[in-house]
Amino acid sequence: MSSSVITRIGSLVTNDPALGEGPLGLLEDAAVVIDGEHVAWVGPSAAAPAADESYDAAGRAVIPGFVDSHSHLVFAGDRTREFNARMSGQAYTAGGIRTTVAATRAASDDELHANVARYVAEALRQGTTTIETKSGYGLTPHDEARALRIAGDHADEVTFLGAHIVAPEYADDPAGYVDLVTGPMLDACAPYARWVDVFCERGAFDGDQARAILTAGAARGLVPRVHANQLGHGPGVQLAVELDAASADHCTHLTDADVDALAGGRTVATLLPGAEFSTRAVYPDARRLIDAGATVALSTDCNPGSSFTSSMPFCVAVAVRDMRMTPDEAVRAATLGGALALRRDDVGRLAPGARADVVVLDAPSHVHLAYRPGVPLVSAVWRRGVRESI
Amino acid sequence: MSSSVITRIGSLVTNDPALGEGPLGLLEDAAVVIDGEHVAWVGPSAAAPAADESYDAAGRAVIPGFVDSHSHLVFAGDRTREFNARMSGQAYTAGGIRTTVAATRAASDDELHANVARYVAEALRQGTTTIETKSGYGLTPHDEARALRIAGDHADEVTFLGAHIVAPEYADDPAGYVDLVTGPMLDACAPYARWVDVFCERGAFDGDQARAILTAGAARGLVPRVHANQLGHGPGVQLAVELDAASADHCTHLTDADVDALAGGRTVATLLPGAEFSTRAVYPDARRLIDAGATVALSTDCNPGSSFTSSMPFCVAVAVRDMRMTPDEAVRAATLGGALALRRDDVGRLAPGARADVVVLDAPSHVHLAYRPGVPLVSAVWRRGVRESI
Ligand SMILES: [Zn+2]
Ligand SMILES: [Zn+2]
Repeated sequence: MSSSVITRIGSLVTNDPALGEGPLGLLEDAAVVIDGEHVAWVGPSAAAPAADESYDAAGRAVIPGFVDSHSHLVFAGDRTREFNARMSGQAYTAGGIRTTVAATRAASDDELHANVARYVAEALRQGTTTIETKSGYGLTPHDEARALRIAGDHADEVTFLGAHIVAPEYADDPAGYVDLVTGPMLDACAPYARWVDVFCERGAFDGDQARAILTAGAARGLVPRVHANQLGHGPGVQLAVELDAASADHCTHLTDADVDALAGGRTVATLLPGAEFSTRAVYPDARRLIDAGATVALSTDCNPGSSFTSSMPFCVAVAVRDMRMTPDEAVRAATLGGALALRRDDVGRLAPGARADVVVLDAPSHVHLAYRPGVPLVSAVWRRGVRESI
Repeated sequence: MSSSVITRIGSLVTNDPALGEGPLGLLEDAAVVIDGEHVAWVGPSAAAPAADESYDAAGRAVIPGFVDSHSHLVFAGDRTREFNARMSGQAYTAGGIRTTVAATRAASDDELHANVARYVAEALRQGTTTIETKSGYGLTPHDEARALRIAGDHADEVTFLGAHIVAPEYADDPAGYVDLVTGPMLDACAPYARWVDVFCERGAFDGDQARAILTAGAARGLVPRVHANQLGHGPGVQLAVELDAASADHCTHLTDADVDALAGGRTVATLLPGAEFSTRAVYPDARRLIDAGATVALSTDCNPGSSFTSSMPFCVAVAVRDMRMTPDEAVRAATLGGALALRRDDVGRLAPGARADVVVLDAPSHVHLAYRPGVPLVSAVWRRGVRESI
């Protein structure tokens, strides 16, 4: 195992208040020493121990790699025309998730591998060093299990989302589809996933169905996470907290009781501004959640229908602009927040013992992720201690 | 002079309706031949003539290089803390344009050259092949002329904006400052600029002052463009049209009479969504302008105070999301629109005779600039026929 040291970091986000100033644990003129896959040392640049290799940050900012805790990358097909029609005010009756389901089922394993690999690499170039991805475009035991196996070859975390929509074949028998998901599909999928997720929304799965699916998954050792309260009020958020889900995702339409539930439990509220951006919907109110004491994560929701961005920096900028987060809060939510939403303590922070997932920004401060929206600021990335070519 | 051919373009935006479909002049499975600095041929990939060099676009989309017709790149200093305070709901009494004026005056020529070069290169990596930039952080004859000379070494178009704010030394004598701008400062600056601009806004320069400045500039051969109606209603837009300014920039607060004036003249309405994004302000209504018959351009307004983005793709995405533009309209406004705002017919389109400023996107369609917000999609750039290393 070789070691390396990143010196002259103008501003370092550790996300460890014991290491530096404020909730971000900020250090100025700092250094990070990497030993093998892990951070070995963090401190003042002038006091940095020697290492096999050295990288001069020359005053630039360093943050932990982004933890994107919510994406849908196992898909095929092209929905550009649907997006274009929606944003151009034109009717477009075909489309929707079913389009992607049909294309994904028809795709070869190689094609799906190539797609997931492409988007994971694209995310890496934008500083994402930990990524979760889901099934949900197969909707048969075979196709869902295939999606999870493929996801597991590329992503850090894999989620079974057989309950994305009711499969087209079960359009007239949603109860039958829930039986399939909780029975043969779960049997086929449980070995390949850590998490079970359900789209709990009017038109998809109601509270009782969601409870049945999450409970069945939990009985097989999968930990719940929930697509909740995206399109309107509903039972998803409170169900997530009740079942101690790792995350309630979207949280766009919340009652006071929903906010209280999130503040009182350990379920993270994962906000996905790309979805509201790309559907011209109202944004979730991160300020309300934070002020109530809830833990907030930011994620891309990268998918070809409602949020085709893989850019965590973009999500940070929009969260500051439109969700009333401060730049500090948004950067923390996109790193440590994502780690908490995945119940990981080895990523999302840069402290001794953490995974050496390090992002150098072409900027003097992490604030520039919000201050310079759209500008590709990621200039160097280490993942598990290895400098990536980006 | 060497020639090159870009083959197998999945979707080509020419911005020439005579060459392809619709206002974008779209061609599928196309090729572009470059001869020296110019486009020599556009047509079906299968019919492309041979050339010295060949580049296989492999189905990717090609658009004309972005024309960023409004930026403020000649500056020094750091306003990160001001931005952070604003977005964090904290008071920050220092700051504003005066901060940048003080830092810019104190900076060496080398430092200013390096800053402008850095941001022009950053914009190029994001597909901007033509860029305008302004003075306006000097506010003395010497410092404004210096800014313009430096700008001219890096930017395609240079604008004299001595009337950005009233210089601090003239805070109690704004009329004296207008005399300075229209007298000695204009004498010093006119040789180095093509355009004269004024920030016509409450708290900066009123309609009479703006008229005096623009008229004086025009008498010295500079063509007017106007910062107009950004922060509130005012005389800027109608003054711009009356003086046949090339562009009225911002156009955020418009009366029906303002819209009618823009629709009736040849002054382009240049919309700068980065400014509204970064100040949490209401966006201009591009739809209203387009429906009335006005010509719309998109630009970054890149500056360290109110819009520190150099990303034209970001502006396209926000314009679609928040300004009711279609993806087609936004891409056209960011290319041909910028060219019209600079009264240039050699850029902003890909037709025989135009400058060979070509951007290859890592996407099958220009629509992806809106569909995939924040994702760095620019994968190859030619400027004046030369492939740039990005
Ligand atoms: Zn999702
Ligand atoms: Zn401006």
